[in-house]
Amino acid sequence: MRTAVFGASGYAGGELIRLIDGHPGLDLAYMGAHTHAGGVLGDVHPQLSNGHRLLGPNDPAEAGDIDLAFLALPHGASATVGHHLAAAGVKVIDLGSDFRLDTEERYLEAYGSPHPYPDQLGKWAYGLPELFDLSGAQWVASPGCYPTATLLAVAPLLLAGLIEPTGIIADCLSGVTGAGRALKEELLFGEVAEGVRAYAVTTHRHRPEIEMGLDLLTGKTSRVTFTPHLVPMQRGLLATVTAPLVQGSNTSELRACLYDFYRTKTFVEVIDVPPQTRWAAGSNRALVSAFSDERQGVAIAQCAIDNLLKGAAGQAVQAANVVCGFSEAEGLPLAGWMP
Amino acid sequence: MRTAVFGASGYAGGELIRLIDGHPGLDLAYMGAHTHAGGVLGDVHPQLSNGHRLLGPNDPAEAGDIDLAFLALPHGASATVGHHLAAAGVKVIDLGSDFRLDTEERYLEAYGSPHPYPDQLGKWAYGLPELFDLSGAQWVASPGCYPTATLLAVAPLLLAGLIEPTGIIADCLSGVTGAGRALKEELLFGEVAEGVRAYAVTTHRHRPEIEMGLDLLTGKTSRVTFTPHLVPMQRGLLATVTAPLVQGSNTSELRACLYDFYRTKTFVEVIDVPPQTRWAAGSNRALVSAFSDERQGVAIAQCAIDNLLKGAAGQAVQAANVVCGFSEAEGLPLAGWMP
Amino acid sequence: MRTAVFGASGYAGGELIRLIDGHPGLDLAYMGAHTHAGGVLGDVHPQLSNGHRLLGPNDPAEAGDIDLAFLALPHGASATVGHHLAAAGVKVIDLGSDFRLDTEERYLEAYGSPHPYPDQLGKWAYGLPELFDLSGAQWVASPGCYPTATLLAVAPLLLAGLIEPTGIIADCLSGVTGAGRALKEELLFGEVAEGVRAYAVTTHRHRPEIEMGLDLLTGKTSRVTFTPHLVPMQRGLLATVTAPLVQGSNTSELRACLYDFYRTKTFVEVIDVPPQTRWAAGSNRALVSAFSDERQGVAIAQCAIDNLLKGAAGQAVQAANVVCGFSEAEGLPLAGWMP
Amino acid sequence: MRTAVFGASGYAGGELIRLIDGHPGLDLAYMGAHTHAGGVLGDVHPQLSNGHRLLGPNDPAEAGDIDLAFLALPHGASATVGHHLAAAGVKVIDLGSDFRLDTEERYLEAYGSPHPYPDQLGKWAYGLPELFDLSGAQWVASPGCYPTATLLAVAPLLLAGLIEPTGIIADCLSGVTGAGRALKEELLFGEVAEGVRAYAVTTHRHRPEIEMGLDLLTGKTSRVTFTPHLVPMQRGLLATVTAPLVQGSNTSELRACLYDFYRTKTFVEVIDVPPQTRWAAGSNRALVSAFSDERQGVAIAQCAIDNLLKGAAGQAVQAANVVCGFSEAEGLPLAGWMP
Repeated sequence: MRTAVFGASGYAGGELIRLIDGHPGLDLAYMGAHTHAGGVLGDVHPQLSNGHRLLGPNDPAEAGDIDLAFLALPHGASATVGHHLAAAGVKVIDLGSDFRLDTEERYLEAYGSPHPYPDQLGKWAYGLPELFDLSGAQWVASPGCYPTATLLAVAPLLLAGLIEPTGIIADCLSGVTGAGRALKEELLFGEVAEGVRAYAVTTHRHRPEIEMGLDLLTGKTSRVTFTPHLVPMQRGLLATVTAPLVQGSNTSELRACLYDFYRTKTFVEVIDVPPQTRWAAGSNRALVSAFSDERQGVAIAQCAIDNLLKGAAGQAVQAANVVCGFSEAEGLPLAGWMP
Repeated sequence: MRTAVFGASGYAGGELIRLIDGHPGLDLAYMGAHTHAGGVLGDVHPQLSNGHRLLGPNDPAEAGDIDLAFLALPHGASATVGHHLAAAGVKVIDLGSDFRLDTEERYLEAYGSPHPYPDQLGKWAYGLPELFDLSGAQWVASPGCYPTATLLAVAPLLLAGLIEPTGIIADCLSGVTGAGRALKEELLFGEVAEGVRAYAVTTHRHRPEIEMGLDLLTGKTSRVTFTPHLVPMQRGLLATVTAPLVQGSNTSELRACLYDFYRTKTFVEVIDVPPQTRWAAGSNRALVSAFSDERQGVAIAQCAIDNLLKGAAGQAVQAANVVCGFSEAEGLPLAGWMP
Repeated sequence: MRTAVFGASGYAGGELIRLIDGHPGLDLAYMGAHTHAGGVLGDVHPQLSNGHRLLGPNDPAEAGDIDLAFLALPHGASATVGHHLAAAGVKVIDLGSDFRLDTEERYLEAYGSPHPYPDQLGKWAYGLPELFDLSGAQWVASPGCYPTATLLAVAPLLLAGLIEPTGIIADCLSGVTGAGRALKEELLFGEVAEGVRAYAVTTHRHRPEIEMGLDLLTGKTSRVTFTPHLVPMQRGLLATVTAPLVQGSNTSELRACLYDFYRTKTFVEVIDVPPQTRWAAGSNRALVSAFSDERQGVAIAQCAIDNLLKGAAGQAVQAANVVCGFSEAEGLPLAGWMP
Repeated sequence: MRTAVFGASGYAGGELIRLIDGHPGLDLAYMGAHTHAGGVLGDVHPQLSNGHRLLGPNDPAEAGDIDLAFLALPHGASATVGHHLAAAGVKVIDLGSDFRLDTEERYLEAYGSPHPYPDQLGKWAYGLPELFDLSGAQWVASPGCYPTATLLAVAPLLLAGLIEPTGIIADCLSGVTGAGRALKEELLFGEVAEGVRAYAVTTHRHRPEIEMGLDLLTGKTSRVTFTPHLVPMQRGLLATVTAPLVQGSNTSELRACLYDFYRTKTFVEVIDVPPQTRWAAGSNRALVSAFSDERQGVAIAQCAIDNLLKGAAGQAVQAANVVCGFSEAEGLPLAGWMP
């Protein structure tokens, strides 16, 4: 498959290139960038090999004849590029948020402005392969990092009727690469290290995406209070999700549900202790666990992922594997690095 | 005041010594340690001045004639030392957990074994001066770091009847010094850096202490789901507490309640943005804010502190100031360091 | 003393304000900033107290009647402000590099362009009080962080004739706040954490300053190879300086020289183990040690400081204390924080 | 090749297992551990896949019929195990230091006690494939992390006669995993983060190993002053090596020498800027550069590696590839991860 990466200079773009370089079925034919168009790969990603490769612009017309495209572009930038490529018959995996939401209402709620191609909403598959069927899809909207971890933590419990779809509290902790490679004072080492904080309390755009995921799975209307936190680490995302129990399930019952649901899923591992993000870093795995607080009548479900892999580039390649007919795990690391 | 510090070699002990050295009314007359008894201060706390000072054992009989003692001892070790000193007429501030809980039932629930001096329970003042009256107290049980931040975040809202006393979800994030200076593999830099995790889910001993605090304030029975997380930083603690709204208060109403309650409190600052632990590090301040998620009908209240100062040594000195008749802020930093 | 801080919004500016607020003899009468002029202190330094105080512009004409000014401005910006204030009879402590070098030649070598007020060069005292006499000075150029640590490590050995003034290798390690609060991609947490690198190899502007310091002390021409490194920490600077021994002194002889030289210096502590930056962080202390590699005939001298205190704001206040007739240690912390 | 890893529970052991699991020619037949013998892999390395695999003891007799063994054991522990395996005809790659030094004198100098099998010294190949020929070797002593980086930085310059073999100053910076997974207070997050320090000044055991490497390459007697530093990061090692120039070569001449020497070496990349450890992390690459300080007459040569890969497990697999007849790069990552 002749493959292009648009948005090659960011953190997710770098990981996409690393994964594609190591994938036996994908041939990296084009890399597009914005500021760094015209430069070489090694200047933006010195950690990668063959750094002499050229970066072109983020323009599909320059990419030549390609079969598959990954878009790692800022919000708003992938709508037009993705629409153009899809119309041209290219398989597209969009890591951005432009095609994730299913309705105009939901898009407007999340982003505050109408979608440029509203008829496209709902036509892109939501690329969380453990929860949504991608077979037959040509265009995939790859989920955000927070929705990935939150949905993996609670979806089985919700589908099994063990927890309520409302009253869900998702307190999530992310490393700084979740914010991309943007030049903002709040992302300086001098500001981030040795501290922790919440941000976008009650207003983060991933909340409607999480609720959409739950709604699509259950056919009910879910409601989530989502509070993201920035943690002084580069990679990793932990979702701690507290939800009302329906019938007072104990910890064993919650975990049995998770084990059963994920038994056949290559990239999800259910464990009996609180998952650590370090155990997932460097791999495409999600580590999931659950606890019952029977006194209070709530479940505490957790999921740890590497936000740049299962939360971005890894999951996008996983979706591409399904779309292109490769084995779902092709080219994706199951073992992480630690420390 | 001739002052002693028992447990001088730990992190809280080091901060106590630093604060006492800079306090105009306290004279550091004795420092006790366990492993390092017989050694000099500079070997365990090279960051402090006058490192040639000697450390004795953690034995009150060796401390000579003292007026005030701070106990920074491991759980279980302060009961006997504290009881002995109190009986001898010494003012005691115990940073440990031995005298915090008010009843045998609560102690048994938290610690799984009976208290060695059950008649002492409830006789020590709970040393959170912004919420509990310490006037007249001679013996103070200084609160844990998690209860301090959690109670400061929600107590005013609960007292004003804006949130329910049950259904409270406290997801708290702490730097590693909250676990003390213990030699455990899980506290190695190689295990902690670049990762985050929860621990003691549903079983942490600070949960009964938080509930006791709320019960004492309101006269009702509160219920809290408490999930502590370990964050790769040395200092700082953030409590993110979600609680059901009673009457759908909006964000302005929640904050007005906080501003009003803390108007006269030197060490609590109410702010309009999510508090960062870095803004509190190095000071005895607590930064508090609140948000209303009206869709879901919950309040999100947050409090950020330096776990070694407002969460340990600073709060202990604050209590000592009240007990000894000094100004409450004497010797305590209001400005932090950043970065 | 009515005191002004120009360049209040940077990291050194924040520390200056914290120190001045706690200094019994200094009254903070004015704070100037560039981008944040017109704003309040709490928005740029949320860690400080009394955050409602206003910031004015970096314009001396706006500062009113002041006795003392600290300049924490970018390179090139303090020449005019400092010259103006000095001419107006204000005591000035410049934390920048504009007035540090003693000759036009040295300035041109370091900065590549002529000085705007060349007749001022050499008229400002070089503010390293342990090595240079500041008595009688009205205008002080406060040393850079690297020169401070490097000179404190080797000056006594050089003055005693134990090491050669040439062939000196200074490999120095600094935390990121040494680069200020500038918005550069290379200072993002995502780029800095979990890595280390050298920069400005053979070309750093502090090399001529270090050599000037050595030349002024010895009357000889020194030569230093200076390689600065960026370390993933916020504060702290370690100088590891290797220099040829003149007569094969052993470790004891080197340390005896250091102990003797610094015996009366409040802020320099000579120790028998390699100094750690953590032991100096939060204080105005410099920790110094030395080792002899007799096999190879070289001394290894080290100095650890807090780059924002002894390497910037603390040393500037120390110089102001001398200039204004206060005790040299007034308002300056001798104990640091750790962890 | 049926392959065993002894010392599987440490950091290098974990990386060996990850690499062997992904190596098409190696079959992991046995894993030995000390404390964790009898447990499962997932308990000591939760980041790896197939965590249910059992760990046996560090006893070759338990390993069954194996063709290749990697030893990642503490100093002193691999001598006997290695000797036994070698005598039994197993190919052995020892990541420890027991067989690295070539003479009894050198061993005694480094370790202070005689070697248990002195006749084995010099019979094990020194496994730095870019500098030493491993063809025909059956037993390989894999170099230490500091010698690897230091030798790669300066060997070409020394072999070309551009720098002197004496007067070499190696100031090296390592992440904490270089010290292994040992339970020491000085390796706690609370002690390591936000600080930097040197250790083992003039006494580190890698100094004789570095000098041995240089001696073997040049046939001359070299002399190195080696000062290792601990940096608050998990992985990565940077060698900054300053050495006297023989004939005043400029920067271009130094780099031309490096480019020429490493042109055919897969894992060494010569670059024109100071190498960052982050650019090597996660790969088996070494990044090398050099600068001339012509004023002072010295070269500054630098090398950055991932201490757990090119400095330990990766280099060991690279040596095994040569010993076993695989392609040298088989199973080894050329691209790293960043951030």
